[in-house]
Amino acid sequence: MPRPIHLNLFIHGRGHHEAGWRHPGATRKALTDITYFADLAKRAEAGRFDSIFFADALELGDGARYVASGALEPITALAALARETTRIGLIATASTTYTEPFNLARQFASLDHISGGRIGWNIVTSWVAGAGPNFGYERAPEHAERYARADEYVGVVKALWDSWADDAIIDDPQTGRFLERERVRRIDWKGSFYRVAGPLNLPRPPQGRPVLVQAGSSATGKAFAARHAEAVFTAHLSKASAADFYAELKQGAIAAGRRADDIVILPGLSAAIGSTDAQAHTLLEELNALTDIQVGLSRLSNRFGGYDFSALPLDQPLSRDDFPDPSTVQAAQSRAAVITDLVARERPTLRGLLRQLAGARGHFTVAGSPERIAEVIEDWIESRAADGFNLMPPVLPAQLDIFVDHVVPILQKRGLFRREYEADTLRGHYGLGRPANPYFQN
Amino acid sequence: MPRPIHLNLFIHGRGHHEAGWRHPGATRKALTDITYFADLAKRAEAGRFDSIFFADALELGDGARYVASGALEPITALAALARETTRIGLIATASTTYTEPFNLARQFASLDHISGGRIGWNIVTSWVAGAGPNFGYERAPEHAERYARADEYVGVVKALWDSWADDAIIDDPQTGRFLERERVRRIDWKGSFYRVAGPLNLPRPPQGRPVLVQAGSSATGKAFAARHAEAVFTAHLSKASAADFYAELKQGAIAAGRRADDIVILPGLSAAIGSTDAQAHTLLEELNALTDIQVGLSRLSNRFGGYDFSALPLDQPLSRDDFPDPSTVQAAQSRAAVITDLVARERPTLRGLLRQLAGARGHFTVAGSPERIAEVIEDWIESRAADGFNLMPPVLPAQLDIFVDHVVPILQKRGLFRREYEADTLRGHYGLGRPANPYFQN
Ligand SMILES: Cc1cc2nc3c(=O)[nH]c(=O)nc-3n(C[C@H](O)[C@H](O)[C@H](O)COP(=O)(O)O)c2cc1C
Ligand SMILES: Cc1cc2nc3c(=O)[nH]c(=O)nc-3n(C[C@H](O)[C@H](O)[C@H](O)COP(=O)(O)O)c2cc1C
Repeated sequence: MPRPIHLNLFIHGRGHHEAGWRHPGATRKALTDITYFADLAKRAEAGRFDSIFFADALELGDGARYVASGALEPITALAALARETTRIGLIATASTTYTEPFNLARQFASLDHISGGRIGWNIVTSWVAGAGPNFGYERAPEHAERYARADEYVGVVKALWDSWADDAIIDDPQTGRFLERERVRRIDWKGSFYRVAGPLNLPRPPQGRPVLVQAGSSATGKAFAARHAEAVFTAHLSKASAADFYAELKQGAIAAGRRADDIVILPGLSAAIGSTDAQAHTLLEELNALTDIQVGLSRLSNRFGGYDFSALPLDQPLSRDDFPDPSTVQAAQSRAAVITDLVARERPTLRGLLRQLAGARGHFTVAGSPERIAEVIEDWIESRAADGFNLMPPVLPAQLDIFVDHVVPILQKRGLFRREYEADTLRGHYGLGRPANPYFQN
Repeated sequence: MPRPIHLNLFIHGRGHHEAGWRHPGATRKALTDITYFADLAKRAEAGRFDSIFFADALELGDGARYVASGALEPITALAALARETTRIGLIATASTTYTEPFNLARQFASLDHISGGRIGWNIVTSWVAGAGPNFGYERAPEHAERYARADEYVGVVKALWDSWADDAIIDDPQTGRFLERERVRRIDWKGSFYRVAGPLNLPRPPQGRPVLVQAGSSATGKAFAARHAEAVFTAHLSKASAADFYAELKQGAIAAGRRADDIVILPGLSAAIGSTDAQAHTLLEELNALTDIQVGLSRLSNRFGGYDFSALPLDQPLSRDDFPDPSTVQAAQSRAAVITDLVARERPTLRGLLRQLAGARGHFTVAGSPERIAEVIEDWIESRAADGFNLMPPVLPAQLDIFVDHVVPILQKRGLFRREYEADTLRGHYGLGRPANPYFQN
């Protein structure tokens, strides 16, 4: 019996390819139109996906000029989508660097109640450099400090969610007693970065805690994931790299006193699907032809915290020396490393590199027929490079529709993917248990 | 032709009366059950109300033991309700003291897009003393400082909403130009309390700006409202006091260079409705009999920032000297004043005072038949004590249902209240214009 796989739909603009929005298969709806996102969520639910997911950046960024951007805020969007769907999990990104922990704990608890236990929190420290100045900082706090804060932050948020016993509410109109106040406790958190009294002002979420998702892959990021993450998004340009990451992270979880199954690992997969492999390649070439060197350069520069690549020649092989050392990068360290590794290995031209990144910003990109995509998925799962995938359709909704209509049935036929939902919560879909409440034993 | 009136439904627990949740007319659904709030919102929409409203306190508070509490967070709840309704306005409370302005501006902009322009922001500085320690403070910042911050805060949030011209998005797949970057500007706010670079990361809200609602009535609070508020909630125990407030605030708006119609004034109205006046009085007495002295004392103490009233005799006339001077109260100054004025005027016993406050915490309370309630409403409107009401049903949903089924039709028959919605936005319902964008002239 093959291992069942997990599928998360990563919703991003009108598709993940930088030029996806210019393709006829992309929606013409505005990115502020909730009905666009509702249609995607319903489509993913019809395809029996585990979850949908919104990333988040706390600045507009210069690329907005050429890329469909300016979308709804994830927490409010998910609250609305909770009423448009009934089973699928809903994951929102929120920042530990720029949000008050009481506010974040509370909004995610509220979302989990609204959705009946279908919420996940993608914990990020916010890599974009421009976020800092939107929150009173001269510049964003450094990578190490962001993670040190995040570590304490997650402790605060868990303690707030656990500040109510699951049975704290009595709700007896006869006696007039509503709450067993002894089953709700202050947390009196006094740490290096946060002081939060608590308790939270609403009951423990249906899932106990929303699912903790994480997407940082630097050394610090992986250590963080090993301790806290229940699902991990990650970017790899090869199966080998994904398999190494997979083994390392499962080991890390075990070293941290957890079980390998306590972390679900979901690498990004950008699949350009056509009726035939040839049609799929044509699609990808069409999309690449629509990209713009300036947009690509500005995005590459962003990932490296503002480093200027514009003086490099476009059509000569690059070498690792053309890039700063990823471990000195204050923005997205792990993505910087994915890129420099690729450069060292393949020596692409700058033009070629930008094309390769245009598809999915450093995630694995494949073009092929539905059969071919299903094979890749099965292969990665069997090779223990993944527990499932973070699907990143290059064009939305067209490429999601093809995946749901043509790839999902193949996976189902092979017994790899559910035909019907077997659970009602995101924890249930991912095979994760409901966390006990350490403060209240029953 | 009489002035048309405005009606806002203030949703609070299972009703505004302290013991409302113990009454058979109250829902048995949990306060974390979104379907309960969805039913109320739909009911209010069927009654052609202008809006619904959620208050907010950033602490649980001790009263939770005896009062239905621990409800959904307002912003997430409203996002969900936006998908359950199509016309009614949706107002959420959010705090200027404990939320990052970039996050607040963004979530409200997102809500306004999700709802198609139906959002209002009830601007509060958060009066509850216990909020401070949930956000890293030893204790809550003082009244004057909270308002000084709030004043600057509103400037930041407006500038963020206005950081995109209404026509900034080009969205042309042919040329690949998505955004006219020159029609989006940084705000580079550098004030006494906030430094925010901007621009916001999503387009200007459909209403230009969500409706600015305010509910502080201290001297500082009224000055703030005169400058910023487009709708004002306020608590009065008599028509005379409401009329004074009304005249003063409209004058204040004019003095601040605005028009009297730029502020819609909505006093609270807690109506206990029965088929006859006698039945209504019986209902109110039933509810009062279910209250608890300890709960009342702890709530009274909260309003006065923790002052201890427990040594006072229960059954002797109170005098003003039994209370601290409201202007020294760091919590809710204006509500403290409403209460001490009442004490000076009527010399109630402590037991009697607690009963009077149990109905609606210092808002006007009336018991009567539908005819009687309609008369009160018409009288206040004609007397220029109100532009409409913030309806605070003592028991939910039963008392809302009676209001919609029996009071609204009377108001409609008298030409005082709309039979059908004439607008699609909250600004439209309240008769407010869409604010021009000072940074981008077309
Ligand atoms: C699928 C995926 C989604 C991500 N989404 C976000 C996001 O929404 N916001 C963000 O700031 N970072 C996001 N990240 C990036 C990581 O959080 C980023 O790597 C981190 O900020 C820096 O950590 P690192 O240096 O450990 O990689 C995402 C990464 C992946 C793989
Ligand atoms: C109808 C109404 C609703 C209110 N809702 C809130 C609320 O949700 N949160 C809050 O902190 N204060 C709320 N207030 C109280 C005012 O914001 C409070 O008076 C203020 O914090 C202190 O201002 P003041 O001293 O100017 O009155 C409300 C007041 C009224 C009349």
